[in-house]
Amino acid sequence: MPSALILMADGTEEMEFTIPYDTFVRAGISCTSAFVPAPDTDGSEPHAVSPPFCKGSRGINIQPDTYLEKHKCGPDHFDLLVIPGGAKGAETLSQSPVVQELVRDYLDHEKFIEGSTGSLAALTSKLPKQRLTSHPSVRTQLEKDFDYSEDSVVISGKLVTSRGPGTAFPFAFTLVELLCGIAKREEVRSPMVFPLSTSF
Amino acid sequence: MPSALILMADGTEEMEFTIPYDTFVRAGISCTSAFVPAPDTDGSEPHAVSPPFCKGSRGINIQPDTYLEKHKCGPDHFDLLVIPGGAKGAETLSQSPVVQELVRDYLDHEKFIEGSTGSLAALTSKLPKQRLTSHPSVRTQLEKDFDYSEDSVVISGKLVTSRGPGTAFPFAFTLVELLCGIAKREEVRSPMVFPLSTSF
Repeated sequence: MPSALILMADGTEEMEFTIPYDTFVRAGISCTSAFVPAPDTDGSEPHAVSPPFCKGSRGINIQPDTYLEKHKCGPDHFDLLVIPGGAKGAETLSQSPVVQELVRDYLDHEKFIEGSTGSLAALTSKLPKQRLTSHPSVRTQLEKDFDYSEDSVVISGKLVTSRGPGTAFPFAFTLVELLCGIAKREEVRSPMVFPLSTSF
Repeated sequence: MPSALILMADGTEEMEFTIPYDTFVRAGISCTSAFVPAPDTDGSEPHAVSPPFCKGSRGINIQPDTYLEKHKCGPDHFDLLVIPGGAKGAETLSQSPVVQELVRDYLDHEKFIEGSTGSLAALTSKLPKQRLTSHPSVRTQLEKDFDYSEDSVVISGKLVTSRGPGTAFPFAFTLVELLCGIAKREEVRSPMVFPLSTSF
């Protein structure tokens, strides 16, 4: 069974977290969410004790499955690392040295990385110039160092990037297809009952 | 500011909960989630004490803002009642006598009701025959008593119904338009960056 580690921080966009997690579980992908505390703590990481919630960008409180620990979250444990968007959440995730190291480790081990506003982590992790997309709000930070695209989902080797909540479904289905095959993609998509005219 | 009460129970579909909640907050609609315990308790409602989570259909634990109490959750407090889908969650919500009474009260007071698999609550609340849609899995339970449609979003007076996670965005945007106007719908939709070909 393929497995995914889905990061979250205070300010993570709830839909960009929930849509991939839920879609992956439907596809039989084992999902684990890992909370990354904001860097402005005094080192005691208060969120690791209480409250045990991640406060999303629009106020929905979600309980993480675990906390980010490098030795339990590397590419030897998961097939896919997901970095959701959300302005404040993406900032915390992309500025975390542990996340930056994981991004490089996953790609070195030929494991997938998926990001949207989370595409910022490609910059902070100093990935080589390649095609990517992101939420338009962080475009100017990325277009100098990457070959910026406005496609809804961009696949560059093992780096898969997307644009926002509006592309979260095609983004999740792309990863289901890459990890589980096209038949599984259709098996998962069909009972969600998208409008007939939907393009993905 | 318009306000929405969004119900949840163990087994609620996470995307059908998160997409309207998040979209409504973006539109300036004040959102409150209310947990409805499953009926098979001994009356002590263990979820009202601990654990303080709602366990979604795909394993995401979400903290409710409050618990369903009739005197705090009626149409004098909110403009819209949302009943998300998810097989087990929709069963709990539609079988709750308090929810059934609220459905009738909201419609009596000309307040909106929004449901998908939650359309089952239209049946258990004994609403008069009218046009509606639902997730295909509960179609046979509804088509004898209602004028069943396969449209993605069906508006029948103040009852707005939809089909599943795949119609959750157009469903949420429809309510934003009804409560806040078409300009607000576009203001909220645009930064979500849907694929260009999206029909809603």
